[in-house]
Amino acid sequence: MPIRRSKVLVKWIFENQHKFQTIRCCSSSLRYKVLEENTQAHQEHVAPLMSTPDEKPRPQLTPDISFKREDLQVRLAAPYQLIPKPETVELGFGKYFTDHMMKINYHKQLGGWQKPEITPFENLSIHPAAKALHYAIQLFEGLKAYRGVDDKIRLFRPELNMERMNLAAARSGLPTFDGNELIQCISRLIQIDQEWVPHSETSTLYIRPTLIASEATFGIMAPESALLFVIMSPVSAYYKAGGDGAVSIFADPAVVRAFPGGVGNRKVGSNYGPTIEATARAAKLGHQQVLWLFGPNHELTEVGAMNIFMVHINDQGDKQLSTPPLNGLILPGVTRRSIIELASQWEDLTVKEEVITMERVIELNKKGRLLEMFGAGTAVVISPISRVGFLDHDINIPTMKQSQPVFQRVKDTLLAIQYGHLEHPFAKVIS
Amino acid sequence: MPIRRSKVLVKWIFENQHKFQTIRCCSSSLRYKVLEENTQAHQEHVAPLMSTPDEKPRPQLTPDISFKREDLQVRLAAPYQLIPKPETVELGFGKYFTDHMMKINYHKQLGGWQKPEITPFENLSIHPAAKALHYAIQLFEGLKAYRGVDDKIRLFRPELNMERMNLAAARSGLPTFDGNELIQCISRLIQIDQEWVPHSETSTLYIRPTLIASEATFGIMAPESALLFVIMSPVSAYYKAGGDGAVSIFADPAVVRAFPGGVGNRKVGSNYGPTIEATARAAKLGHQQVLWLFGPNHELTEVGAMNIFMVHINDQGDKQLSTPPLNGLILPGVTRRSIIELASQWEDLTVKEEVITMERVIELNKKGRLLEMFGAGTAVVISPISRVGFLDHDINIPTMKQSQPVFQRVKDTLLAIQYGHLEHPFAKVIS
Repeated sequence: MPIRRSKVLVKWIFENQHKFQTIRCCSSSLRYKVLEENTQAHQEHVAPLMSTPDEKPRPQLTPDISFKREDLQVRLAAPYQLIPKPETVELGFGKYFTDHMMKINYHKQLGGWQKPEITPFENLSIHPAAKALHYAIQLFEGLKAYRGVDDKIRLFRPELNMERMNLAAARSGLPTFDGNELIQCISRLIQIDQEWVPHSETSTLYIRPTLIASEATFGIMAPESALLFVIMSPVSAYYKAGGDGAVSIFADPAVVRAFPGGVGNRKVGSNYGPTIEATARAAKLGHQQVLWLFGPNHELTEVGAMNIFMVHINDQGDKQLSTPPLNGLILPGVTRRSIIELASQWEDLTVKEEVITMERVIELNKKGRLLEMFGAGTAVVISPISRVGFLDHDINIPTMKQSQPVFQRVKDTLLAIQYGHLEHPFAKVIS
Repeated sequence: MPIRRSKVLVKWIFENQHKFQTIRCCSSSLRYKVLEENTQAHQEHVAPLMSTPDEKPRPQLTPDISFKREDLQVRLAAPYQLIPKPETVELGFGKYFTDHMMKINYHKQLGGWQKPEITPFENLSIHPAAKALHYAIQLFEGLKAYRGVDDKIRLFRPELNMERMNLAAARSGLPTFDGNELIQCISRLIQIDQEWVPHSETSTLYIRPTLIASEATFGIMAPESALLFVIMSPVSAYYKAGGDGAVSIFADPAVVRAFPGGVGNRKVGSNYGPTIEATARAAKLGHQQVLWLFGPNHELTEVGAMNIFMVHINDQGDKQLSTPPLNGLILPGVTRRSIIELASQWEDLTVKEEVITMERVIELNKKGRLLEMFGAGTAVVISPISRVGFLDHDINIPTMKQSQPVFQRVKDTLLAIQYGHLEHPFAKVIS
């Protein structure tokens, strides 16, 4: 029986070798055995830690054993391959990339995850029938490495990105993994390219783990091969705001970002491509981002690719910070969660996850009780909003007119933690 | 002024040359000039021919001048690169690929579309930050080349695929093109690989034009670089049906394929990745496909990646063929449209585009007036349905018990046209 199986395996490798670049076979027989024993595999790492009870847990498609940091192989770039580092003012967002990248192949027929490898930054060689290019079987994460005042490099709650990445993988039929192992592999990649972490508090190194289906067949089903890769880019501001640093946003009730029963709460490519056209139309009307509404009550869900927050005087006369609850339509942002957790400890502010409708925004604004609106996310950090276009309304939000705005306090606190001014468990020094 | 501009262009090429593989600069200055004159470019080729009036026409983001068949460059595979052709019984769907492929690059800064080229089939070299891999800025088409009884090779209404592809491109911020030029380029590709068009009426050559964003930056916006590529695969049946040739489908009201304001009516990758999990769950319950419902009335929209049809005795006592109308949630299928147009000429059948709810299906079935259900699409052609699982219902559909089923008549007519048994304007002999 083992002999027959290994014949099948060899035949499969022979027939499919043109489809993938990097196969490390050395431990495949061992891995194959482990895979068999893995039917009752541990699933702790995909526990829906960031979802609220109204989000039904879904069955995991493929219980996978993880790749390991200890198997990491490194192939350094030759000196002539190293790229000159651009000036901070030239960085933009995601235009330049560091000297190295990481790749981890997954081949179900070879026992699952292969050994992680760090290589010089290079183009991917992808079969033109790879499911990632046709059926958007793909997902990504975004986190940052910050160079602190003490010159130490920190990550901000990377375990939350890993949990979210595994949830997205399970939702997409892609293989899951041990998030701690990936954090350790990423830490090694950052160490190798550490001079790419900007010596500046206005810029950071943005890290983009990506998981794509590499299997090259046309059937619309979970892939048997996948590629997890990590690339890194030194970044400054995500986009140019107005003169006062605030953005204008456009809410068109006819366009919808996410829907119940869909993938709006998972960081998958399918949430982004369909937004391009609406964003371009908002830009033509002079707005920087789209405010995504949902339902007949025009509930606010997200803004651009950020979570949305509102500060107002509530019916009890208290200052309140509100953001929509995680109802399946909203990405469980790491910045969102951190803001809620940090601000909940501030005694002069009520924090609440609640439905916010456009009617409520307009009403509060008329009464002079709407103080601030802002978007929040890893890429942008905090983006204050000064204007909302909605139907025939042109709503001016006094976000930039507050003497001690909440958005600034939130932003200062986050940056203080991230750059090591403030010791806090959210920030993890990489070692 | 022209000198300054060309300096800018050269600088851009120099800075970005690592991002793309194939740049043909020979005519770029000319193209650059044409691009300037192109602000009022012709848009006829993106007219929403396949949409019904209730689908709002959307503004096109980028009016583009097309690549041309006359610029097509061909690099043939060397004899040692040619792949042995598999037996028809081994084909499956999209597992084997022909010896050649086509690629057409688009670089806005170089004047737009570059020269089309046919090359040996090979992996794509893709920058790991390409927007197609992160934000699902990608779309595809599916059509087939049939070897007729007269040994001539035919395409089936390829102009409809081209129109739909341009609509999807405009919706995705990807460049549009002249569909006739692409049909001519594809015809040349088929001619080169003509021995891959199966000599059989149970299999065909499936053609997969794909358009992806190749620009390598992290901003979520329309890309300035894209790649259109065409690959081809000899195929037989899309999936194995039950013993009687019919499939069982599962309708879960909790999962949604498409929603108003989304992209359900455009053939983009984002419609497919999010369906993987639901399809896997349906399979676990013993069903081959998912029946996609929408709204509180459980309206039938699609089945798997096919359009859905129902045959029943209507309230007037006539035999009626029904399919849901193009309301924005439904892919405007070429097979769907062809069935409607062909069956409308049959005097013994009423054909109607109408909303079909699960309640109606159950009611008709109870009264013995539901005769058939089937899915229809290019990949599958016609797939009869014998069973529907829905909530606590297990609905048996007498599709396979009809003496002269409509699905068979539809299928026979389509195949007769496609394989040249019946001369019909839908089939185009390639030249």
